[in-house]
Amino acid sequence: MSHTAELIAVGTELLLGNIANTNAQVLSQSLSALGVNVFWHTVVGDNPQRLKEALDIARRRADILITTGGLGPTYDDLTKQTICEAFGKPLILHPDILEDIRAFYESALHVPMPENNTQQAQLPEGCAVFDNPVGTAPGCAFECGGVHVLMLPGPPHEMETMLRRHVEPYLRRLSHEVIVSRDIMTFGMGESSVDQLLHEKMAHMTNPSLATYAKPFEVRLRATAKAPTEAEAQAMLNPVWEMVRETLGDIIYGVDIASLAECCHAQLLRRNMTLSTAESCTGGLVAEKLTAIPGASAVYRGGVVSYWTSVKADLLHVPQDILDQYGPVSAECARAMAEAVRQLTGADLGVSVTGSAGPDPDERGVPVGIVYIGLATPEGTFCRPLDFGRRRRDRIQGLSANHAFDAVRRYLQGLPVERI
Amino acid sequence: MSHTAELIAVGTELLLGNIANTNAQVLSQSLSALGVNVFWHTVVGDNPQRLKEALDIARRRADILITTGGLGPTYDDLTKQTICEAFGKPLILHPDILEDIRAFYESALHVPMPENNTQQAQLPEGCAVFDNPVGTAPGCAFECGGVHVLMLPGPPHEMETMLRRHVEPYLRRLSHEVIVSRDIMTFGMGESSVDQLLHEKMAHMTNPSLATYAKPFEVRLRATAKAPTEAEAQAMLNPVWEMVRETLGDIIYGVDIASLAECCHAQLLRRNMTLSTAESCTGGLVAEKLTAIPGASAVYRGGVVSYWTSVKADLLHVPQDILDQYGPVSAECARAMAEAVRQLTGADLGVSVTGSAGPDPDERGVPVGIVYIGLATPEGTFCRPLDFGRRRRDRIQGLSANHAFDAVRRYLQGLPVERI
Repeated sequence: MSHTAELIAVGTELLLGNIANTNAQVLSQSLSALGVNVFWHTVVGDNPQRLKEALDIARRRADILITTGGLGPTYDDLTKQTICEAFGKPLILHPDILEDIRAFYESALHVPMPENNTQQAQLPEGCAVFDNPVGTAPGCAFECGGVHVLMLPGPPHEMETMLRRHVEPYLRRLSHEVIVSRDIMTFGMGESSVDQLLHEKMAHMTNPSLATYAKPFEVRLRATAKAPTEAEAQAMLNPVWEMVRETLGDIIYGVDIASLAECCHAQLLRRNMTLSTAESCTGGLVAEKLTAIPGASAVYRGGVVSYWTSVKADLLHVPQDILDQYGPVSAECARAMAEAVRQLTGADLGVSVTGSAGPDPDERGVPVGIVYIGLATPEGTFCRPLDFGRRRRDRIQGLSANHAFDAVRRYLQGLPVERI
Repeated sequence: MSHTAELIAVGTELLLGNIANTNAQVLSQSLSALGVNVFWHTVVGDNPQRLKEALDIARRRADILITTGGLGPTYDDLTKQTICEAFGKPLILHPDILEDIRAFYESALHVPMPENNTQQAQLPEGCAVFDNPVGTAPGCAFECGGVHVLMLPGPPHEMETMLRRHVEPYLRRLSHEVIVSRDIMTFGMGESSVDQLLHEKMAHMTNPSLATYAKPFEVRLRATAKAPTEAEAQAMLNPVWEMVRETLGDIIYGVDIASLAECCHAQLLRRNMTLSTAESCTGGLVAEKLTAIPGASAVYRGGVVSYWTSVKADLLHVPQDILDQYGPVSAECARAMAEAVRQLTGADLGVSVTGSAGPDPDERGVPVGIVYIGLATPEGTFCRPLDFGRRRRDRIQGLSANHAFDAVRRYLQGLPVERI
């Protein structure tokens, strides 16, 4: 039988926009992997009437309620009291938990426990206690009339520690199914085009299911199956994967990988090859995405941000006649930049980006959105010309960086580089 | 009269935990600054029954409903249809909006509009239309029985553009007070330290109010005043600004400016000076942040990402005896990198970053978190040594980039560069 959960975050700081409700995201990922349906997230302030109203609504439409926040020691932490009133449970002082909290203060924080922390040792009668190794507020869970109520602390690292240690085992005991997902990563087609290609097949799928998600500048597909065992769920996903692969072909760059930059990093590592970058309109974005990956130095040597034309000449030694005849935004310049940085750094591959990101046309009147990607390799130099039109600067930069990575991954996978 | 808003985010990707509901955070900050109470956030999936239920609950407890998401062109984008059914409004095709969307595809994206985008041109009868300059889905607003319903697109940059352009003016017209805010930007002190310095004064302030917000690697203070006229509100903010300036001194880098990078850009522009970058552990992040700003080419010439030590020698010509004697992560190397890039590019200033971002110590055993910022200027070369300890890689990179910008802005403001 499949369960339905509602997540209720308690905290005025969420309603003022001081923090985002990242606890809901972390919990949702975990619940979805456990096969629990999450149909609602609710956020209320530190206000007992509105929390009571949220609980009354939630218990009618979900059989697992998980609250985060409001377990602290201050006067506005009211989650336990309000839940106990709503479900008719008395709050009981647990002397052993009080001793744990006192010991945490004295041995870890080296200060005596403030007296208002006593209320953190009061928990609903007959509940399961979730200890909190990284803070003072314990969590807890009880079942009442077929509804499971779980209370977790608000600070994200305390919540997440308790989730892994207590909540996931608690929920696993309630379920008899396994959920398996595969993320199919694509680049080169917009979400609505991907959707149009797969629409008829996706619309009728429930288990396994298939959905598209637009990430910045790429589209992710998630295939998900529920079954009694992992092997059965995997077997259900195989035909979905075959169907997607046949439909989308080589715009798929990987499965269960985070980004095009990580795909390039992994493929360069596998082939023991290194890369360098020469960037104009992306201004270091390609380099930055690659060096954000731990261990980047195994595959990335460095590069040049040749933002001014003089830097293309002085640092990259792009021949002056190329700059004069074709201009800095040209296929010829992109090729020369890629070849130069490959040679100057001794890398196996040199990738370049030059273009006009706007908001104004470049000094020679090249329209906004015209971009060239160069790729210098041991087998010769390639160029991919692009026209993004009058998109916003940050989108032209982001798309250009992803096209640079896509050129590298297509070269490494033996696919045509110059067009998608 | 004060209004009460409920934010309803529509999207199964939120319930699966694929993304956090950052739209609710951005909207809540804005509404709170406008004096609108936000008592509830709700998240529902792409499911018309549950969205209908959420709307029925929300219209009983709030007089402003703002939805985000579900305005896209795909079959699961059902927000408009569901809201129109719930509020008894017909959906009308707007031929002019259809033409705008078609024109956006043809002139900006250079592809024909997919036919399923037609539904984006259907809007509730008699609504105010919110145009979307950065995407295809327009937003809209209508009033029905004293309840204002606003529909915004889900992608955060589209939502935020529409918020500033349309939603804030729309909500301001519902109110009879003017709210004026000033954002005081600081770098160099953590949020809890800033909070401690200002705590006693902030705690008793309601109008004008003062609050701290931690941004990545910096702290923003927002002073807000409500008054019948803008002049009165501004007059209320002046003593708050004086108090903050006296308390925090030169860690304040600006007022109403977006980031340290924008502060450097503006100051370089004012002085008609140019900058170049030489980056090791930040891998292009400083260059990328600067070139993300439209018009960056007026102040930024370019730079080198000298990730491998050989690139520091071959491209930047850092003397081999500095690399041998002190190593690539050293004050001496940071100074040499900054001087080299300044000279090679002919810029007025050269800024450099070299350090160990982890997760492992560098090849010579320099511990994770040791970073040096170099700044070469016409008055000589400065170095700021830093020790971030064993923080996460992305945090060391982000903090290092901001220290590089802070060194530049302190030099330009005539403040000491080598320490904060």
